[in-house]
Amino acid sequence: MTLTVYHAEPGANSLKVLLALKEKGVEFESCYVALNKFEQHEDWFKAINPAGQVPVIVHDGRVINESTVINEYLDAVFEGAALRPADEYGRAMMRIWTKFVDEYFCPALSYLAWSWMIAGMVKDLSAEEFEAKLARIPLKEQQDKWRITAREGYPKERLDEWRRQVLTSIGRLETALAKGGPWLLGEQFTLADIACFSMAQPMPSGYADVMNQRDTPHLMAWHGRMMQREGVQAALAMPNRYRDEMLATQSKEPSHA
Amino acid sequence: MTLTVYHAEPGANSLKVLLALKEKGVEFESCYVALNKFEQHEDWFKAINPAGQVPVIVHDGRVINESTVINEYLDAVFEGAALRPADEYGRAMMRIWTKFVDEYFCPALSYLAWSWMIAGMVKDLSAEEFEAKLARIPLKEQQDKWRITAREGYPKERLDEWRRQVLTSIGRLETALAKGGPWLLGEQFTLADIACFSMAQPMPSGYADVMNQRDTPHLMAWHGRMMQREGVQAALAMPNRYRDEMLATQSKEPSHA
Repeated sequence: MTLTVYHAEPGANSLKVLLALKEKGVEFESCYVALNKFEQHEDWFKAINPAGQVPVIVHDGRVINESTVINEYLDAVFEGAALRPADEYGRAMMRIWTKFVDEYFCPALSYLAWSWMIAGMVKDLSAEEFEAKLARIPLKEQQDKWRITAREGYPKERLDEWRRQVLTSIGRLETALAKGGPWLLGEQFTLADIACFSMAQPMPSGYADVMNQRDTPHLMAWHGRMMQREGVQAALAMPNRYRDEMLATQSKEPSHA
Repeated sequence: MTLTVYHAEPGANSLKVLLALKEKGVEFESCYVALNKFEQHEDWFKAINPAGQVPVIVHDGRVINESTVINEYLDAVFEGAALRPADEYGRAMMRIWTKFVDEYFCPALSYLAWSWMIAGMVKDLSAEEFEAKLARIPLKEQQDKWRITAREGYPKERLDEWRRQVLTSIGRLETALAKGGPWLLGEQFTLADIACFSMAQPMPSGYADVMNQRDTPHLMAWHGRMMQREGVQAALAMPNRYRDEMLATQSKEPSHA
């Protein structure tokens, strides 16, 4: 039984799968895919996942993509702490959360993050090099997202709408956690916490105006509890070449701030 | 053990849940919510589902919304034919399909359908009456969708992009079914077939240019097999006041075609 996990740095959907693996204590072979080097669009990777997206797992020769699907699979197949409620109503409530992350919270955050991140990634590419990179992206909507974020940017009303959706998402989490806790479904730590945390993890710094002690005290307390978990710490300690290279670049360039 | 199902006519997400119920032979109390009368935004319904959307089930006093979550719940809890593979890899493959319907196929179809349907629904309302209807819609993104589709409409490039996504979705189904069948996952009829059919059911007439014998023969054959199933026929025979009222209106108005 072999398990290979193709993932990027421990953030967003890659973090989601790494959290489930580390929380359960599942052994796996880590294969880092550098998104800032566009490795997810290289032929060797598209042979594994034709959509050209991480994370992906290969378990005994069988490929599974989509982080939410992967996490239910990992929980069902591997030993370790159960990350889903034992009862079906609890599972339904868990899936309402994981679905909300996939369809609402994650897309809003993703469009906003890309709007500043991609421009930085492609700034040193010529128009020709950029088009060559684009041509290797298998999904048309991903191509569009790259082209728009890297060049003209999205119109202000769409960016405003995504910011509103992020604010709504944070409000939904705060309301749920204010009802009890310590976890989103109550006493049991589940894939719902993992999915929401995979998005909310960097927000107390990146979105301090919407996620902070004053406005979202219950969410901040939950974030603190998450950060104290061994599995969470192990997932966040996974290689992060994107951050390392950003830090290396910053330390080389003189600051004009 | 009581099960009440709040649903609209047998189309899209309401059809998805009705198909699972009828395929399994689950007894339930049907509660029809007339979308063209905006009943889903009335207070009595929002007391059940604050999001103001169908379908919703109430099982022994507990509310579950989101058709995809409902269908996994129904299959796990009720007797009748299993609509999910017994093995976890099969379940993962099934969830890739149900997720694709929720995140890609359904939204594209929905924006296109609303673009002509909502305008018809609200054409007899004054601006004041329309705003009063809008004010009762709990979700901001649903309010926006109503306002835009009912009044100015979406820009051509967004409509074109949704049309492209519908075409891509149909292509993905045809490719999968060309590999074998008779069902999307092979021998077993599953929630993947139910989810895809809930969207594709009216397309041989509504989208005959993209779903037809010449271009998508395997998909048409699958559609034919679906239509022969007793459970599918029973679901499609559920009340359809929207269609009935449309037909009644057409028979009263002189045709200028």
